[in-house]
Amino acid sequence: MADYTLYYWPLPFRGQFVRAVLAHVGASWEERDVDAIFALKDAEPAQQPVPHMGPPVLIDNAEDVCLSQMPAVLGYLGRKHGLIPTDAQAAALTDKLVADANDLLYEMTLHNGAQMWTEQSWQAYLPRLGRWMAIFEETGRRHGLTPEAGSMLGTEAMGIADLATYALWGTMIAKLPELEPMLVTTAPAVAGLCQRIAQRPEQEKLRRDSDSAYRDEWCGGQIGASLRAVLEAKQPHGAPRSQM
Amino acid sequence: MADYTLYYWPLPFRGQFVRAVLAHVGASWEERDVDAIFALKDAEPAQQPVPHMGPPVLIDNAEDVCLSQMPAVLGYLGRKHGLIPTDAQAAALTDKLVADANDLLYEMTLHNGAQMWTEQSWQAYLPRLGRWMAIFEETGRRHGLTPEAGSMLGTEAMGIADLATYALWGTMIAKLPELEPMLVTTAPAVAGLCQRIAQRPEQEKLRRDSDSAYRDEWCGGQIGASLRAVLEAKQPHGAPRSQM
Repeated sequence: MADYTLYYWPLPFRGQFVRAVLAHVGASWEERDVDAIFALKDAEPAQQPVPHMGPPVLIDNAEDVCLSQMPAVLGYLGRKHGLIPTDAQAAALTDKLVADANDLLYEMTLHNGAQMWTEQSWQAYLPRLGRWMAIFEETGRRHGLTPEAGSMLGTEAMGIADLATYALWGTMIAKLPELEPMLVTTAPAVAGLCQRIAQRPEQEKLRRDSDSAYRDEWCGGQIGASLRAVLEAKQPHGAPRSQM
Repeated sequence: MADYTLYYWPLPFRGQFVRAVLAHVGASWEERDVDAIFALKDAEPAQQPVPHMGPPVLIDNAEDVCLSQMPAVLGYLGRKHGLIPTDAQAAALTDKLVADANDLLYEMTLHNGAQMWTEQSWQAYLPRLGRWMAIFEETGRRHGLTPEAGSMLGTEAMGIADLATYALWGTMIAKLPELEPMLVTTAPAVAGLCQRIAQRPEQEKLRRDSDSAYRDEWCGGQIGASLRAVLEAKQPHGAPRSQM
């Protein structure tokens, strides 16, 4: 039996945060298919292994622990595998960065697709996306992160703060490459960190597997198509795609 | 100097989670006014005590710790004041319930007011609100919570899981009383827990202070008015207001 069982859509998005951590700690995990996810999600709360609204759901098979909510899953895995600093402030900053990432995933998908992007709404949103990049960059810089070296909270080893930063920005620019120049300009130290993590063998393998399974999807659905449409219509820095 | 300094809008909503915990531990705190919140929130990330997008922001004055993100603030206060179980699964379930609460606050305000409620969209949403209630109820029941006694995770003393449950559902039905019958029917054990916590002297005092400062506001803004309009137009159980 695998160490963990993961229920998440065949997409990167929130699931990639969990997968990046599982890959980092060298855990084995099995992913359930879409039918199983729907069956679990649509069951009455009393019938669910953990009462929840939607995936990701992670089961720790050896410990018989079942959790939903990406931030809670990362907190659990981080504490179990020593990826959260013991210092109280650094631990809380880890939670803070994960909550920031979760908020940004909502924003980029207009709250999981409640509305669709238009060229106008996307252009109006871009400064806020830049501000999120600057928030991550400034956090890292305060702890010694540079484009060439370091980690988000100044820890010697990579922790949840780094892996979540990578799962957010690294995955985003891999799947929505139109945003890469903006990240490199606005948050060069974060972009460097993402590049260093992406080159680790376990993350390279994860990315190959994910690319083969999810192709070019990031968040999926109509909102994913809407996001791609506005990105392809106009580059964040104003240059049309054909000139890039 | 107060133990803590809190930056949050003069509203319950996410801020009440932090206030309920501060009141519970008997901490003193000072709240900054709206001008100070705007000045902090609009500053460049490099100028902010913690790089962040918006309130709540909490400063622990003695420890010189500054945090944003309600879930991170609750995690910090919970660990500092012994309000998070030491058991790994129970600690992660605490994070999970706080993340659930945070998601529900987004949903009830259509992602902080990105859209407005209509009678139709609100009626379509009600089953999902009921499911959130059932998720909290089932979680508590599994740990021995009844309408008369117990706690969300079976702990002897109240913890963050209980205080967050109260700050979510207890505040919601106090400010949007049209929803109380639905909570009592769907989640009687949660409703009982909220009532017991509300009767504690420190929470009674907090509620008196908050009522006097924020009147009948819950989330504020146009979305708050929109929410009140659909609630007053139609009771969740279908009875017009005049018959209640």
